[in-house]
Amino acid sequence: MNWETLARELAQPTDSKIILLVMDGLGGLPVNGQTELEAARKPNLDETARRGVCGLTDPVLMGITPGSGPAHLSLFGYDPLHYQLGRGILEAMGSGVEVGREDVVARGNFATLHRGLVVDRRAGRILSEENVRLCQLLNQKLPEINGIKIRLFPGKEHRFVLKLSGPGLSDALTDADPQKEGKPAVPARALTPEAEFTAGLVNQFLEELKTVLAAEPKANYALLRGFSKFPSHLPSMPALYQLQPAAIANYPMYRGLTRLLGMEVLEVGPQTGDIFSVLEKNYGRYNFFYLHYKKTDSAGEDGRYEDKIKAIEEIDAFIPRLWQLKPEVLVITSDHSTPSVLKSHSWHPNPFVLVSDRAPADEVSRFTEKDCARGSLGRFPALQAMPLMLACALKLKKFGA
Amino acid sequence: MNWETLARELAQPTDSKIILLVMDGLGGLPVNGQTELEAARKPNLDETARRGVCGLTDPVLMGITPGSGPAHLSLFGYDPLHYQLGRGILEAMGSGVEVGREDVVARGNFATLHRGLVVDRRAGRILSEENVRLCQLLNQKLPEINGIKIRLFPGKEHRFVLKLSGPGLSDALTDADPQKEGKPAVPARALTPEAEFTAGLVNQFLEELKTVLAAEPKANYALLRGFSKFPSHLPSMPALYQLQPAAIANYPMYRGLTRLLGMEVLEVGPQTGDIFSVLEKNYGRYNFFYLHYKKTDSAGEDGRYEDKIKAIEEIDAFIPRLWQLKPEVLVITSDHSTPSVLKSHSWHPNPFVLVSDRAPADEVSRFTEKDCARGSLGRFPALQAMPLMLACALKLKKFGA
Repeated sequence: MNWETLARELAQPTDSKIILLVMDGLGGLPVNGQTELEAARKPNLDETARRGVCGLTDPVLMGITPGSGPAHLSLFGYDPLHYQLGRGILEAMGSGVEVGREDVVARGNFATLHRGLVVDRRAGRILSEENVRLCQLLNQKLPEINGIKIRLFPGKEHRFVLKLSGPGLSDALTDADPQKEGKPAVPARALTPEAEFTAGLVNQFLEELKTVLAAEPKANYALLRGFSKFPSHLPSMPALYQLQPAAIANYPMYRGLTRLLGMEVLEVGPQTGDIFSVLEKNYGRYNFFYLHYKKTDSAGEDGRYEDKIKAIEEIDAFIPRLWQLKPEVLVITSDHSTPSVLKSHSWHPNPFVLVSDRAPADEVSRFTEKDCARGSLGRFPALQAMPLMLACALKLKKFGA
Repeated sequence: MNWETLARELAQPTDSKIILLVMDGLGGLPVNGQTELEAARKPNLDETARRGVCGLTDPVLMGITPGSGPAHLSLFGYDPLHYQLGRGILEAMGSGVEVGREDVVARGNFATLHRGLVVDRRAGRILSEENVRLCQLLNQKLPEINGIKIRLFPGKEHRFVLKLSGPGLSDALTDADPQKEGKPAVPARALTPEAEFTAGLVNQFLEELKTVLAAEPKANYALLRGFSKFPSHLPSMPALYQLQPAAIANYPMYRGLTRLLGMEVLEVGPQTGDIFSVLEKNYGRYNFFYLHYKKTDSAGEDGRYEDKIKAIEEIDAFIPRLWQLKPEVLVITSDHSTPSVLKSHSWHPNPFVLVSDRAPADEVSRFTEKDCARGSLGRFPALQAMPLMLACALKLKKFGA
């Protein structure tokens, strides 16, 4: 028995409300002795720390740097070591491609084939506009095979997402990619008997694609990698937690992931204030709100230390609007750290603060990495954040007698 | 490999002694800014915190509110998510019914049957005295069936515990209860082939019970739920830890559970001082002592904040008697929290202090929730308390070379 089984047994519906604000990539490392959080002027985040109970979370395990997928799964109470999202799924979500529970998706490259050999795995990095034209052409010429709908979604340069929709599809396929240049093209191979149908379909598609693209100077072939389905056994948040959850997120990846978890994904504009307006407008209709703020991560990824500080200060001004809603539980944290000095995600734990009448404040009065380390919650796996939020909202019954 | 396998490999018998005092439901939430522990005058508990190393434990997982069964299992080093106690077992233990390792127990209701339909699932909530008479009657008329001994133990109003004793019994049965009134009585159904014998026996018992109770105006039938055995694979503490453990507990639930774990359950009076007298009298005969103090939990469950403070102050006066015994390890903690404001068990972590020559004191000088949060042990799963206690008593060998 694990948390998921427990959740099914113990979750109970109540009207109490939970707001979870994720400041993406929030944690940092010092520059001239101060992390971004330490350098920022953020009176409202600090006041939240003063009112709440603080800690630090590890998204997966100490030392593991997570992608956005695993980091978010963990925060929502899904073990990221158990539920792994395939590369195709992540690419699709990152590109804003909607993926249904029956669909199979893959990452695609346009490539150059010469006498049966893959001579350029990126088709000379064709222009993105060319890519759009090729995808439109293929979608028009090859709309379906054997009753399975086929759609290509262009990405940057030579990249695209392939989506197959229809009954009986499996993602247990090897890559249709020799991985190295100068080698012959390889078909996708089924890894299970159930995947034979999909393998046949993919290989027929590649053959027909060759015909359609025969006249193209560079992009006359395609490589397909990371065939994946959404994990079929991944339960939805409403089923698991008896919640009515809503996601307020502007970026495709987070919208895609939360939609697949059964959240209602609300439309939200690109301004920071939009997050809060959408929350206020929909506050009566749901009882779990996931708010996603991207700017902290974007600045971190680019190594823009000052901009990350500004991103923190910018959202700080809106925090009192969360207080005013008086949710039973308010959590402000991050999915993973993105220190500007590393210009990438990192393994450092996330500052975490929870405000609830049923969680007496500790002595932490600043919302920083070091201060949260001294909070009453201690250092804990992000996977335990969801049980904690549900408990403080009285949404969990007693376990055993 | 988990802790249990480790324990079997590493545990070694020594004369060193461990005292574990469980102040049931100790942790609380603030009333006028102070938890019960913060408000209580408890110089000896504070002195214990000063001498020892402190922390906070989560009985199951953060956010999970445990019943007394799972919470105690965890403290004794048994994973409560792995070893689940059936409802029948818990009811039996709570009623003071001794359950052997081969017995099957169930919760029973006297009920009213009319023309084959269950018209009252509680037989009009008959008086407890009536219940006693009916159980005696049935125990006399139906002492056994097919070599299996049958015993009914009366509870409050219409409730009783059914115990079946004999070889070959299984608890893989569905409830003999339609769950709703106005529906026909249902027999117990075997969930495995091995349970067919027990199902047949239970259903024959219900038929014969109908005959015995035919003339009763209300209580002319019985519903049986939660058939359960003690988990057969649950190892005993002496086998697992090479200990001679004794339990000093006055309440049936804790006596039943510790007996099933292989502890010697000592007789103890209802006064707080009795716990300590029994300990002192038996100190030479065992090397692990579990002391259970119920008053903190009872006051918390009833919402009696002031009484919970008094319960803490009452036992505080006896703490020096534990010091005087100079055990190699002294732990004072709780199984779960029971804040008076919630009038129930809760998910909040337990204050924990361990005193041992081999556990250097940290800087904590008050035994409260917040102070323990700053202790050197940090916040940790209660399941790790047992390894820690055994280690400090030098009862665990090295793992690996």
